[in-house]
Amino acid sequence: MYAERLDRVRHRMGELGVDVLLLSIGADLPYLTGYRAMPLERLTMLVVPAGGDATLVVPRLEAPRVVERPEVFTLRAWEETEDPVSLVAGLAGSARTLAVGDRTWARVVLDLQARLTAASWRPGSEVVGPLRAVKDAAEVESLRRASAAADEVALQLQAGDVPLVGRTEAEVSADLGRRLVASGHAEVNFAIVAAGANAASPHHEPGGRVIERGEVVLCDFGGTMPDGYCSDMTRCVVTGEPPAQLREVHAVLERAQAAAVDAAVVGASCEEVDAVARRHISDAGYGDHFIHRTGHGIGLEEHEDPYLVVGNPESLVPGHAFSVEPGIYLDGRFGARIEDIVVATAAGPESLNRAPHGLAVVEA
Amino acid sequence: MYAERLDRVRHRMGELGVDVLLLSIGADLPYLTGYRAMPLERLTMLVVPAGGDATLVVPRLEAPRVVERPEVFTLRAWEETEDPVSLVAGLAGSARTLAVGDRTWARVVLDLQARLTAASWRPGSEVVGPLRAVKDAAEVESLRRASAAADEVALQLQAGDVPLVGRTEAEVSADLGRRLVASGHAEVNFAIVAAGANAASPHHEPGGRVIERGEVVLCDFGGTMPDGYCSDMTRCVVTGEPPAQLREVHAVLERAQAAAVDAAVVGASCEEVDAVARRHISDAGYGDHFIHRTGHGIGLEEHEDPYLVVGNPESLVPGHAFSVEPGIYLDGRFGARIEDIVVATAAGPESLNRAPHGLAVVEA
Repeated sequence: MYAERLDRVRHRMGELGVDVLLLSIGADLPYLTGYRAMPLERLTMLVVPAGGDATLVVPRLEAPRVVERPEVFTLRAWEETEDPVSLVAGLAGSARTLAVGDRTWARVVLDLQARLTAASWRPGSEVVGPLRAVKDAAEVESLRRASAAADEVALQLQAGDVPLVGRTEAEVSADLGRRLVASGHAEVNFAIVAAGANAASPHHEPGGRVIERGEVVLCDFGGTMPDGYCSDMTRCVVTGEPPAQLREVHAVLERAQAAAVDAAVVGASCEEVDAVARRHISDAGYGDHFIHRTGHGIGLEEHEDPYLVVGNPESLVPGHAFSVEPGIYLDGRFGARIEDIVVATAAGPESLNRAPHGLAVVEA
Repeated sequence: MYAERLDRVRHRMGELGVDVLLLSIGADLPYLTGYRAMPLERLTMLVVPAGGDATLVVPRLEAPRVVERPEVFTLRAWEETEDPVSLVAGLAGSARTLAVGDRTWARVVLDLQARLTAASWRPGSEVVGPLRAVKDAAEVESLRRASAAADEVALQLQAGDVPLVGRTEAEVSADLGRRLVASGHAEVNFAIVAAGANAASPHHEPGGRVIERGEVVLCDFGGTMPDGYCSDMTRCVVTGEPPAQLREVHAVLERAQAAAVDAAVVGASCEEVDAVARRHISDAGYGDHFIHRTGHGIGLEEHEDPYLVVGNPESLVPGHAFSVEPGIYLDGRFGARIEDIVVATAAGPESLNRAPHGLAVVEA
């Protein structure tokens, strides 16, 4: 599998005129080698010449972590007294155009640029992004398992199994995190819990605010499964009968989200899907309160290509996997969002999340 | 406090000839503003002109997370349809020399370089690193609390409260993580558990190997406290009477670690401290098996300046805080390491970790 992916990467490098691809921390490296670099200051870097063998440069003390795959790369462990940047520059040789993984540390990029002064540089996502964005059947199955595991937590939340009233947002967030692990995730990536007016802040940091009766609790959570694939979903519940406007706003979101999912057919552009969600919300009078894009790709990273956003003309193809998550945020009052992971297939869009979309009343 | 830190940053920018400093994800930003950027693809960036007011550029949907500090920065929230890179480039204006935070994504650096073609670039750590490396009294107190919290877990381990025999490394790692949270950490950063021959891999990934009787279990764990400061410590225990050579190796490490701590006086160079640990280990015949540097600075990040490594002539000053962690690794057999966090003070080196260094026999 890795060798085949690397072949496709080399093909794309040829198309783009990239001589050498350099990958460090982030998901590109595990996608191509099965190895994830530690996010530390000692450099790990895969050097992929368009026409030659790949070399994985790793700190000696991390070399035992690497599962060697001679058909994919040669391992080159560097000692504490060696300079790994020189090593990589030497392997890059006289390359004219280099692509470097998007999440590589600036420090490394600047050090490499100082050694390879004649080279021009491009983001690695131009090479690897479009390949990673299109999931094969096994990857879709991985995402399906991740979404099912997140759904378990959503169903517990909607059933009232997660105590809310009287606890702080931070306590509920920690509780959701434990449930994500219990349902099969290896890591919790985030668990936003935003109550009442805090729900009007899309990326709210759960804090010491105690949840009260009669308010909306927006929960947006996701994690990484043992095989590296991510979940991400959002549901809102209310602790007792909500104000009429919240019901209205949530109903608008339910229609907008469903319409956007329906629009996510093969051949549709990313911005068209965004526009569908936006039109529903604008028609209901809340256009100014939908302040973010409709969705993002998901896979080995929580956010990756393709992005469902104004200005992205990219067409959906079978295997594109992404969130569809419109939201409405009324500053100082409340907010709501509904989010599922969806895969574009030849047979139409498939929602991987199955927990109901309705505004569940818990602890009424 | 933040305004005073920013003054020192500006002073240093003047010394180095840096016109504008750009900070994104990582610890430099919270050090100077109290705000930590989300590690996502939407750009957050603090723009600090040497002679002008600082601006914090954030995605609109994350703006509510920011605690505004008008005496430190002006907030500039960008909309989903704006280009934040253009915004930052506009704020940087005609700067000739820019410094960009070390952990900024490569993608952002390349995008900025494409807009600011006449500029030269330096790593942000040249500006902020030396300031962050010297902790003030409040920061030392924060590190003391973090180390005391980690010590609690080490004492539980040494007392035999953490079941080992019959559990997998991964299970013990998760257990240590829960204990780190229980002792006051907000986040677990890592909990290496390496049994028997796995302990010869310094950055071993805890896995499915079941711990047996009569083997060494190397535990290297740390987390981040609610105020952002980190812990990091290593202790080895044995599940029953160990082989004689392990006792010998561990005794060598105890002497080497203590000697290196004693050598970490104000005015000593970082490489001298490394050399002291290395000499003790080499004299005992294990020089080839100490395959990493002696230590790294610690603060808002687990690893930061100063590094105790061959080739670093930097002199210790009061407030430098760092790990002292020699190790000996016998491939295919076993390994051991002892690690404390130490602060250089005018009165001499102070070890913040207090858990005993001896090789505790548990579940004998």
